Amino acid sequence: MTTVTVSSDGGVLTLSDGTRTARFHAIWLRDNAWDAQTRSPGNGQRLITLADIPKDTRIATAAMSGAMLRLSFAPDGKTVEFDPAWLLDRSYDRAQDRRPGWTSPGIETWDAGLTHAVPTGDFASVSADPLALCHWLGGVARYGFGKLLGGPVEDGALMRVVDLFGYVRETNYGRHFEVRTTVNPTNLAYTGLGLQAHTDNPYRDPVPTIQVLYCLESSAAGGENMVVDGFRAAERLREESPAGFDLLTQHCARFEYAGEAGVVLRSRRPMIELAPDGELVAVRFNNRSAAAITDVSFDKMEGYYAAYRRFGEIIDDPAMEVTFRLNPGECFVVDNTRVLHARKGYSGTGTRWLQGCYADKDGLLSRLAALSVREAAE
Amino acid sequence: MTTVTVSSDGGVLTLSDGTRTARFHAIWLRDNAWDAQTRSPGNGQRLITLADIPKDTRIATAAMSGAMLRLSFAPDGKTVEFDPAWLLDRSYDRAQDRRPGWTSPGIETWDAGLTHAVPTGDFASVSADPLALCHWLGGVARYGFGKLLGGPVEDGALMRVVDLFGYVRETNYGRHFEVRTTVNPTNLAYTGLGLQAHTDNPYRDPVPTIQVLYCLESSAAGGENMVVDGFRAAERLREESPAGFDLLTQHCARFEYAGEAGVVLRSRRPMIELAPDGELVAVRFNNRSAAAITDVSFDKMEGYYAAYRRFGEIIDDPAMEVTFRLNPGECFVVDNTRVLHARKGYSGTGTRWLQGCYADKDGLLSRLAALSVREAAE
Repeated sequence: MTTVTVSSDGGVLTLSDGTRTARFHAIWLRDNAWDAQTRSPGNGQRLITLADIPKDTRIATAAMSGAMLRLSFAPDGKTVEFDPAWLLDRSYDRAQDRRPGWTSPGIETWDAGLTHAVPTGDFASVSADPLALCHWLGGVARYGFGKLLGGPVEDGALMRVVDLFGYVRETNYGRHFEVRTTVNPTNLAYTGLGLQAHTDNPYRDPVPTIQVLYCLESSAAGGENMVVDGFRAAERLREESPAGFDLLTQHCARFEYAGEAGVVLRSRRPMIELAPDGELVAVRFNNRSAAAITDVSFDKMEGYYAAYRRFGEIIDDPAMEVTFRLNPGECFVVDNTRVLHARKGYSGTGTRWLQGCYADKDGLLSRLAALSVREAAE
Repeated sequence: MTTVTVSSDGGVLTLSDGTRTARFHAIWLRDNAWDAQTRSPGNGQRLITLADIPKDTRIATAAMSGAMLRLSFAPDGKTVEFDPAWLLDRSYDRAQDRRPGWTSPGIETWDAGLTHAVPTGDFASVSADPLALCHWLGGVARYGFGKLLGGPVEDGALMRVVDLFGYVRETNYGRHFEVRTTVNPTNLAYTGLGLQAHTDNPYRDPVPTIQVLYCLESSAAGGENMVVDGFRAAERLREESPAGFDLLTQHCARFEYAGEAGVVLRSRRPMIELAPDGELVAVRFNNRSAAAITDVSFDKMEGYYAAYRRFGEIIDDPAMEVTFRLNPGECFVVDNTRVLHARKGYSGTGTRWLQGCYADKDGLLSRLAALSVREAAE
């Protein structure tokens, strides 16, 4: 039984479906109307601006009409209808204060315990079956990474992975880059050195939000890949040292890369980034490209460095890492705003050849959302 | 005369060149060393992690050796040299508290007064002359937009503009998109409607940071372009209403676009985004794709809407806008994290055909920095 009441001044509507109750302001309701004069029926885009809505908008009448809530507004007499469930799903009449570092309900943080439950897809299946793709992308969205097995062993095959969910983000490294040992490397990635767990390109703003690393040759000893959930690492830091967590979230670090001619990339962003309401939205961590930190005051710098050190120790803790070896035709996809990746050193006989590229997470999430809608409808 | 002293516990070095004095912590100095064991001489990337530096690192000795500052650290005996000027340029021994909404010294906010001083380049000059390109890109970086005149009137010419400074960011709209009136438009941009000043794709995260709009046909009446400095608008809001400014910076808005099949793009980001230390870093404003705002508590929603309305009024104020008409072969480039663009409605006889595409600002700033280094060296 849906009930609706309006405050005496017409400013606030209270809606209840028997289970959920929420208050909505007149201006919010008018702005979020879905009639054909407010929103384009074809593409859903809003046709008016806030300036088109009278400043003193208030609710004149409100009543259920069948399953729909019918409202009229003063002073302009505008009439609109809402699905009460749509409104209650968008209730803002609730406590909004959460502890800094909270994560979206759509994600789950993890440590080494995920080793035997890594989101894994089969290249042929996810390419042919939207349901398989939806499940695999859902895992990538939830855990921030996923593996894809059984792909072709051919130059450029990683582009077929990107085609599954989005578009390549081209950079100074090209549309894709070759990860193998080279002489006079412009980047330490192109050596046999082990690399501490890191996010890629923190000196870019925005950073590439997705990375694909695709294996074409893998006969050298060593070179295993590791991934670490930067969000779990941030949560651990917050538990151990709330003050240290605050230092890393409330100050900008700096990153720089100028390892090739004509390129001077610099950024100023926090190592642990929160939305203004405290949601954990990104981690940037990369010893190779960390530049001098100058945005922390003298009296806080020692504490900042202690937190930075501890954050690195947590990231280096084997209890945090999922390790695997990619074979030719296998790849992994990481959310580069969240999951750090690393590789063990390699050398000696044999070869190790990966191809990497960047793409964007919004495209991946869009594809997932569209596939999920389709799933739900079937 | 450079002087240097070390605190009795070896924790802090005080450096002065007679004009500037600054204190540096031992751990900061060790971490930022530039010797060949710490930083790769070829590409400048750091070869060690913080875990490789003893936790109790302190300065054992410090003395000038010619023009260089020579330091040794305990307990490991590590010796490094610094250019004192390099250190003093990176001083963090200063007050770090600034009023929220401060802007980088590299930028200048503007209003309609910029109309006759728009950063403008000539296509042939900036294509051929690095100095001309450096000056034009410098203007785009400082003001957040710039015009380029005298370009070819040919399909795809906008790609030659992007080639000047970076890489196309491909999206669901393609590598580029056609801005002209279409039947059943997936986006209101593809109609003759006037569009309120907006930033593009706020429903994407990250948003495209650069947009290029290139004119190929322009015989219809109307359709003028306008740009508004979102940073100046944010500054005005802050002056008029500090509380309103705080509401827009401290809460996330939501944006959504699902106007074509297979695309469901959603984001949750503030309309005015600050770095954790208050630097103004981005503005998102788009009436067409603003979704229901649910991350503001009930008791703050009316105030939020009042601030949102006022921000829109400031953006709509003609005193804020620079208006111009693009002729075939002319284009403009905007920093889509800062400068809003709009167009007046058009209709009737004649045609209006623009091509647009997205690119990334970090590439533009990198190109500018590299060209500036080259300028300085010549």
